[in-house]
Amino acid sequence: MMPPVTLRDATRHDVIAIVAMLADDALGASREVTTEPLPASYYAAFDALARDPNNRLLIAEINGEIVGTMQITFIHGLSRQGAKRALIEAVRVASLHRGKGIGEQIIREAIEMARREGCAMVQLTSDKSRKDAHRFYERLGFVTSHEGMKLTLD
Amino acid sequence: MMPPVTLRDATRHDVIAIVAMLADDALGASREVTTEPLPASYYAAFDALARDPNNRLLIAEINGEIVGTMQITFIHGLSRQGAKRALIEAVRVASLHRGKGIGEQIIREAIEMARREGCAMVQLTSDKSRKDAHRFYERLGFVTSHEGMKLTLD
Repeated sequence: MMPPVTLRDATRHDVIAIVAMLADDALGASREVTTEPLPASYYAAFDALARDPNNRLLIAEINGEIVGTMQITFIHGLSRQGAKRALIEAVRVASLHRGKGIGEQIIREAIEMARREGCAMVQLTSDKSRKDAHRFYERLGFVTSHEGMKLTLD
Repeated sequence: MMPPVTLRDATRHDVIAIVAMLADDALGASREVTTEPLPASYYAAFDALARDPNNRLLIAEINGEIVGTMQITFIHGLSRQGAKRALIEAVRVASLHRGKGIGEQIIREAIEMARREGCAMVQLTSDKSRKDAHRFYERLGFVTSHEGMKLTLD
């Protein structure tokens, strides 16, 4: 059996590894910039994120080696009798480590984290082209009940 | 022409009106509880929300009359070169005021708010049964590019 995946909060030192994982992806490749040094916008975003107690950027590790990343945001709202929800974004498994069930361990951990925070729901959107991802999340109990709509601003 | 819709931050006094609008909806009716007084969970959620500077619960008014509500959450992240995104949730127009273009004014205001905050994207999910809503958002420039997936926790 695979050693367990542990999740920890990312530090500023992890930004390079996280951006590399975001870029190492069919859709992410054209969206990210992996120059050295990285564009300052990544660090500015990290600093803003780290100041927000409802927003956690996570590193998944096996035996101290980085194998994945994920962001989870906790959102209070009045809907559903004042339910808190968790939003999952930017899930990636490092390419060397794909196909080993690591993504499943990451998402199961995220669900437990949401439960501990008192969330009534976990939600995410997944690009319509990522059919494997939809089957993956449905296997973990997610229901494809909504359309995910995006507006890009200039 | 209709007088302009203005958006302001909700106060604790608006919670009853907001919950009434959330409940006055095909899907919301079964999810909300509109007893008097309201369940304390709504006020606890309002207080938590009001403490979060990245989360705004808004009231739409025309000439001081409440005509709608909306929540917008600003989320920092590393994806897309450290782009900030805005998440829209819980959009409602009071039933007396539907069909007058108020929803469109609310969403256009929300988009401007996201732009002023420096967001690169506005996103939302809409239940697959709300076909009119999808056409409405597409008319405003949203692209139905993603599946919206939800997992309800016990």
